[in-house]
Amino acid sequence: MPDYQAPLRDLRFVMDELLDYPGHYAGLPGGEDASPDVIAAILEEGGRFAREVLLPLNQRGDQEGCVLEGGEVKTPQGFKEAYAQYVDGGWPGLAAEPEFGGQGLPASLNLALSEMICSSNLAWGMYPGLSHGAADALRHHGSDAQKASYLSKLVEGVWTGTMCLTEPHCGTDLGLIKTRAVPDDEGGYRITGTKIFISAGEHDLTENIVHLVLAKLPDAPEGSRGISLFVVPKYLPESLPDAGGRVGERNGVSCGSLEHKMGIHGNATCVINFDAAKGYLVGPEHKGLACMFTMMNEARIGVGIQGLGLMEASFQNALAYARDRLQMRALSGTKAAAKPADPIIVHPDVRRMLLTQKALAEGGRMLVMYTGQLVDLAEHASDAAERERAETLLGLLTPIVKAFLTELGFEATNEGVQVFGGHGFIAEWGMEQFVRDARITRLYEGTTGIQALDLLGRKVLMSQGETLKVFTKEIHTFCQAQADNDALKGYVEPLSRLNAEWGELTMAVGMKAMHDRDEVGAASVDYLLYSGYVALAYLWARAADTASQALAAGKGDEAFYRAKLATADFYFQRLLPRTRGHAEMIRAGGVSLMALSADEFGLGFEI
Amino acid sequence: MPDYQAPLRDLRFVMDELLDYPGHYAGLPGGEDASPDVIAAILEEGGRFAREVLLPLNQRGDQEGCVLEGGEVKTPQGFKEAYAQYVDGGWPGLAAEPEFGGQGLPASLNLALSEMICSSNLAWGMYPGLSHGAADALRHHGSDAQKASYLSKLVEGVWTGTMCLTEPHCGTDLGLIKTRAVPDDEGGYRITGTKIFISAGEHDLTENIVHLVLAKLPDAPEGSRGISLFVVPKYLPESLPDAGGRVGERNGVSCGSLEHKMGIHGNATCVINFDAAKGYLVGPEHKGLACMFTMMNEARIGVGIQGLGLMEASFQNALAYARDRLQMRALSGTKAAAKPADPIIVHPDVRRMLLTQKALAEGGRMLVMYTGQLVDLAEHASDAAERERAETLLGLLTPIVKAFLTELGFEATNEGVQVFGGHGFIAEWGMEQFVRDARITRLYEGTTGIQALDLLGRKVLMSQGETLKVFTKEIHTFCQAQADNDALKGYVEPLSRLNAEWGELTMAVGMKAMHDRDEVGAASVDYLLYSGYVALAYLWARAADTASQALAAGKGDEAFYRAKLATADFYFQRLLPRTRGHAEMIRAGGVSLMALSADEFGLGFEI
Repeated sequence: MPDYQAPLRDLRFVMDELLDYPGHYAGLPGGEDASPDVIAAILEEGGRFAREVLLPLNQRGDQEGCVLEGGEVKTPQGFKEAYAQYVDGGWPGLAAEPEFGGQGLPASLNLALSEMICSSNLAWGMYPGLSHGAADALRHHGSDAQKASYLSKLVEGVWTGTMCLTEPHCGTDLGLIKTRAVPDDEGGYRITGTKIFISAGEHDLTENIVHLVLAKLPDAPEGSRGISLFVVPKYLPESLPDAGGRVGERNGVSCGSLEHKMGIHGNATCVINFDAAKGYLVGPEHKGLACMFTMMNEARIGVGIQGLGLMEASFQNALAYARDRLQMRALSGTKAAAKPADPIIVHPDVRRMLLTQKALAEGGRMLVMYTGQLVDLAEHASDAAERERAETLLGLLTPIVKAFLTELGFEATNEGVQVFGGHGFIAEWGMEQFVRDARITRLYEGTTGIQALDLLGRKVLMSQGETLKVFTKEIHTFCQAQADNDALKGYVEPLSRLNAEWGELTMAVGMKAMHDRDEVGAASVDYLLYSGYVALAYLWARAADTASQALAAGKGDEAFYRAKLATADFYFQRLLPRTRGHAEMIRAGGVSLMALSADEFGLGFEI
Repeated sequence: MPDYQAPLRDLRFVMDELLDYPGHYAGLPGGEDASPDVIAAILEEGGRFAREVLLPLNQRGDQEGCVLEGGEVKTPQGFKEAYAQYVDGGWPGLAAEPEFGGQGLPASLNLALSEMICSSNLAWGMYPGLSHGAADALRHHGSDAQKASYLSKLVEGVWTGTMCLTEPHCGTDLGLIKTRAVPDDEGGYRITGTKIFISAGEHDLTENIVHLVLAKLPDAPEGSRGISLFVVPKYLPESLPDAGGRVGERNGVSCGSLEHKMGIHGNATCVINFDAAKGYLVGPEHKGLACMFTMMNEARIGVGIQGLGLMEASFQNALAYARDRLQMRALSGTKAAAKPADPIIVHPDVRRMLLTQKALAEGGRMLVMYTGQLVDLAEHASDAAERERAETLLGLLTPIVKAFLTELGFEATNEGVQVFGGHGFIAEWGMEQFVRDARITRLYEGTTGIQALDLLGRKVLMSQGETLKVFTKEIHTFCQAQADNDALKGYVEPLSRLNAEWGELTMAVGMKAMHDRDEVGAASVDYLLYSGYVALAYLWARAADTASQALAAGKGDEAFYRAKLATADFYFQRLLPRTRGHAEMIRAGGVSLMALSADEFGLGFEI
């Protein structure tokens, strides 16, 4: 069974040394509660919970899966008890507002804890994971009465939330949804329709489930402008419509079936049938998609963290195996003469795989925690301009966090399997589960293709590149400040070149797209991956700066800082060159993609 | 459930038009039987068998898996009947020598049929698949008596074969094996030990199973020079040691357990216990590894074909879905106004994924059938120099076929999942099974890392680059011949540059490796992938030549040839640029890989 230790030392490096989280928290309202000691204690406790409570349930949950019987979903053994401990520990409301029962700590702290949960048990993590988004949507768009009914329950964690968007015939294109909402005579609505792929849509962890559902009103305009958001509880709170309190009458919501899927078996992925279910409008009529985006942006960062968490888990176990497994002698000469063969970590290609995992996981952690500060600032910075800047950068980085960390998370978990050789394919070792669990992250909350269109089309080109400039300017400023720093030369020079090229590539695609909008889609995924590599290069260069300063200052812990520098070297020499291919493919444009008709694609086998 | 049509039109293009298989077969001994009509009929019949018999069992086999009860393995429902049909149809002995009951057709023909089997049911294909290698090892290294006992049974298919190499503590490093062979007083040996990961090690498809087993004699030298090869039947042929005939007494061979694994659930992956089992030496004492390589080289090409077959299957189903699924309007304007949304094949990024699958599958097919001619020629060319040249090229291309087609096969099957969006993750659609089944191909018969060392270390550098030059010279000759062909300019120029760079990169690594042998391992996987992309570029350039000649000659079927050219364009513009990253990473060398000690890898989480 895989093992896992929360990467507390690396988190401390990222939060305390690289990104000055202590200073960041001190500047936030309520930041006095987020002292370094408190943060360290919470992270340590979170790591303990992940390792001791969640990890032992992960493999068993994969094997057992969820079972639907008589309309009720039974989660794998131990999931319910672990959830109760999670609620008892006060984890659900850590970053929620005190007025709704939360502890008022900064949202970014949740991101660090999320990583640990995803590393130790992704399927379990999806139950509480979606509640954050549901709570956020209600907090931003719900009426006071709705907040009173639902929010504190979600914050406490005694109820969980879902996002009900997808239907059998539409996922990306929500304008096509068929679920209907008809006003009833009690000031509410009756919701009818079928939603699919509803994660945590039905389960036995909590007494109630709060569904946030997209549906169309009878007079709705066509397409995505005619979608409204409703809150639809599994059990109606006692005095309808929304006075809150104990769980009341069962609503017309039921789980029709569970999906059999490649991974995250411990999570119930439900078909949810709404049969004239009682629902309440959240936010204005026909503005449901905008409200839903509140949930979705948070959920997208959450999915990126899933990619990160799985990379880290796979890395730790691959590393342990590579130190232990004896196979062949090093090409450069025997290293462990007393043993029948050398541990495979002596082999350069095994090291390449491990360092790929390590550089991506540590780089991903920096990216997530960098983004976490933007999450905090976009909501709480005292200065409006600072809030706006954070909001802009957050919009730019959200699709990168989501898609880059999940694409690379899938690669990294596969490297973990590869380090194990044939044993990686065997369920017992747990390495293949990381791959199967990781596979969904490239798909849900918007596929990589959708994230890439969001980044290049909506965020970058629609702003005439201004959004991108906010970030490239920050990188440029860093590079200029380090221009004379010999210790950073090997990082700053390539970073500076790529940063300039990023703008050039953007301009090149933008020019083509003026004549042909398909050029955006043709370049988008390569553009997103390119962007991800540059963003990580920026953070790795900063990490190298922090590490070399720590070494120069004689802060102690030298091995840690030297390892940081070596990993930065690996990233720049052995991963960053992938940008060369992406840049060339972006420049090649879309002509070769659009040449064939739909029929002509299949002429090799249709005869 | 996925559908599948054998790509007969494309095979005809590759075999008849691109590689002049009719001429090739005419030049082989017995080639008169392999007339174009006969070949076409066999391929068509093979395609029918794959689609009608094997395909319907694939998904069910995955869900059912194999069951071990009372020492007997029950394969999924229908597997046994399908195997009986396979034997009745004479498929096992298609390319075997008539003296052992075979039909004497060229070995390359089996490769084309293998692709179809792998596309339709990889797990099933592993039962007969390993018999070829076992038969080959006996044919090359077995005594006449052994051939009489076992070979015709394997050729007929009434028995199947296995390769018993791996043990719990060693896979790559076979010098470490512990299985022992002790001479008995009947002229045979008693084999004792445990082998793992034995594909088709036990099953209910045939009355007997012939294990080819690596073991050590009592006086064996240390390491891989002390390994001998034994044939160990599940049931002993009637009159021992080896007179052949009906199945006799049960041997001391048993299946200890079945592995639970990520994919190929329909294939029994066995722990096989040898308990003083009667065995017979194959080939000379202590030369077992060399004998085993006869099986392994064939098996490696076979695994490459598995990658190809899965790409093709995934491509066909992704294409069908992309034509059918309606989602969003094309960015460049509505394409299917009568429908609520456009089919997703209008979107450039969906096309990018489909074309990636298509260009890799069609390219892979060219590479396999190009290699197939070398297989034929290495054994049967009348001219010794031609045999030697074929042997050399085959040695160079075998690790590329194995590792490149499986690495890219995994990518391509994942693109297939991605085209389906969230539905790709759901078992019902069958797309995720292709991914799980493909995952093993990067591991077994030598991981990608091992293939890469074989290519760069053993084949290329150990020959001082001479082996590589045989191939790059052929490419160079092609490029020179086409220098004035304007129709091919866009292909020949980049191909020519890459072909030269291939030699330069080889030289650069070779120079470094003279001082530090770890530089070979540090460059190897990037070198193998680079090599694969260039090999495919060569074949895609030739395909473009063939297609443009066909168009110029007005041969008809214009849409097919135009699609071929468009796919070549896509390959050169949107896949081949990946060489830029690999080249840069090869040049970067191994310094950044070797900097950390084994302990320093884990300092981020070990505190």
